[in-house]
Amino acid sequence: MILIKHLSLLAALFIVGCGITFESPTTGVERHASLTTKKLVIAHRGASGYLPEHTLVAKAMAYAQGADYIEQDLVMTKDDQLVVLHDHLLDTVTNVRQVFPDRARDDGRFYVIDFTLDEIQQLSVVERFQWENSVVSPVFKNRFPLGKSSFRVHTFDDEIELIQGLNLSTGRSVGLYPEIKSPAFHREEGKDIAATVLNALQAYGYTKLSDKIYLQCFDPHELLRIHDVLMPAMNMALPLVQLLSTSPRFKSILNEVGMVRVSAYAAGIGPSIDLLVKPDSSPSDLRVSNLVEWAHAAGLQVHPYTFRRDAGQIPQYAADFEDLLRIFLDQLGVDGVFTDFPDLAVRFIESET
Amino acid sequence: MILIKHLSLLAALFIVGCGITFESPTTGVERHASLTTKKLVIAHRGASGYLPEHTLVAKAMAYAQGADYIEQDLVMTKDDQLVVLHDHLLDTVTNVRQVFPDRARDDGRFYVIDFTLDEIQQLSVVERFQWENSVVSPVFKNRFPLGKSSFRVHTFDDEIELIQGLNLSTGRSVGLYPEIKSPAFHREEGKDIAATVLNALQAYGYTKLSDKIYLQCFDPHELLRIHDVLMPAMNMALPLVQLLSTSPRFKSILNEVGMVRVSAYAAGIGPSIDLLVKPDSSPSDLRVSNLVEWAHAAGLQVHPYTFRRDAGQIPQYAADFEDLLRIFLDQLGVDGVFTDFPDLAVRFIESET
Repeated sequence: MILIKHLSLLAALFIVGCGITFESPTTGVERHASLTTKKLVIAHRGASGYLPEHTLVAKAMAYAQGADYIEQDLVMTKDDQLVVLHDHLLDTVTNVRQVFPDRARDDGRFYVIDFTLDEIQQLSVVERFQWENSVVSPVFKNRFPLGKSSFRVHTFDDEIELIQGLNLSTGRSVGLYPEIKSPAFHREEGKDIAATVLNALQAYGYTKLSDKIYLQCFDPHELLRIHDVLMPAMNMALPLVQLLSTSPRFKSILNEVGMVRVSAYAAGIGPSIDLLVKPDSSPSDLRVSNLVEWAHAAGLQVHPYTFRRDAGQIPQYAADFEDLLRIFLDQLGVDGVFTDFPDLAVRFIESET
Repeated sequence: MILIKHLSLLAALFIVGCGITFESPTTGVERHASLTTKKLVIAHRGASGYLPEHTLVAKAMAYAQGADYIEQDLVMTKDDQLVVLHDHLLDTVTNVRQVFPDRARDDGRFYVIDFTLDEIQQLSVVERFQWENSVVSPVFKNRFPLGKSSFRVHTFDDEIELIQGLNLSTGRSVGLYPEIKSPAFHREEGKDIAATVLNALQAYGYTKLSDKIYLQCFDPHELLRIHDVLMPAMNMALPLVQLLSTSPRFKSILNEVGMVRVSAYAAGIGPSIDLLVKPDSSPSDLRVSNLVEWAHAAGLQVHPYTFRRDAGQIPQYAADFEDLLRIFLDQLGVDGVFTDFPDLAVRFIESET
């Protein structure tokens, strides 16, 4: 029964609609109030604008900067441990090439899932870099310098305990925002990452809608499975977030009916900012989609990604980082932002209240 | 020549005066302006009120909270590495008893200097605890929970690179405040910790009075040696800070002439707060020593320790943590504070300017 409901909902998700359109609002004034009273600052991979992404120091910094939620990207090791890394590859944020030179797959990449936690914790974590013809260069030029200090990969448990411990010592209540990465890939490799993540969350007391957590994933099949099968079986009901990108695979979901379908299993959406404002908009002609409107009408919160103040990362329609925040938080009325610079978003939101 | 000058200055230091006295000021108003324009917040062992002392996460948090300087206590390993730990013992902040049960000295303690860096980095760092009859209890009850998450001992190089890297990625300029721990003990063990620290500082570009650093030590002999012998030989001139405690060994230095003598080699003093205000003072009868006055008259900055807001850590003469800060920063006119709660001191100072 559950499976049939599940499949029919999925079918409905992917046959309706033909994608998103952008239009110029007649005025530049505020379009929508947000669904929540407080705009949320979600620290994207921690305070990753200042320290290497997903390190414990980047999380401690994000916490101190006043983030409401801190993001954990989750992947699994060979020995079934959850580690906090942006994707299932080690070679663009660690020295794995130097430490385990013979452990690449045929595509030349080093997969988290081919290493044990003990092996992974022998690696140094560094600022994200590109590697071309043996030349290494940082993805973002003015961030934490490549290869300095000493950071390690840590487990999901380590990060939950960091945040819960800080909640005790500071008296604040900062939430988790875990992402289940590549569930299909993990399944092909024989691992059920969604079930593993839910087990960890239950063990640490995250079980109900009102807990300080959003659980995010790009894969709608996996979110449906979590909502309809896994969570009910574990007596859990966490708020889920459907991530959305500009990839064609989301085209059929990006419409009014699609948002209603998503609201059947999710509490919110996490769209790329490019799905909300057309990237080639200009300050005088901001081309805005109806996605926030449709999502809000369906009762879905909207947490777009990623707000970066680095040179070259401010879309041409925004004057600067604060203007970008103003467009999304005030004009479009989104409910929160994923940002690499939590301090700046906190300061912007505080300045408005 | 230098040695003779050195010895005669030391002799002078320790034969003059017979200790400090406390008196009640006739009014409760401000006694002294500070020497510096900006009151300094020195993160004592990092943001140690919130995360285990001297971990990299505690340093990142202190940085994010707006500390002006971050403290490093330095001790040496068996293989001559500088590590950041409050004292030369491992057993009250790590699981060394469990990992290396047979490596205690006859006194039952585990000495940093008996372990290599590689061995020390196999240990977990936890919130400071007491260990009595195999029962473990945290020193401060409401801080980061004992044994949660996963932290390691790091080197002085790691911490300098963290702070310098953050100075690059944030555009701020946060300073180092290293302490040379137990130089006499290190010498007995065949190690020259002062020379090792100076070498590290020079390698990272800290060489002159105007650099963002204060180098602190309790041992006046070692500070004199650093000032008169080591730094001139290395073409360095860093600002030094003479730490002072209520121990009888400092009695002869705690007077007007003593402060003039100290000013011959140091830029400031770091006294216990109990040397500035008598601990059994009451709010209506604050008994204050002349130490700040004498120090300022000699051109010395005054950075007292330690400002803690934990239950039981507020002296009886202060109503609360903010009142304690007000007494020292405003009424006594000290130039900076060592605190486990950098965020609260930053907020207090900002609220006054």
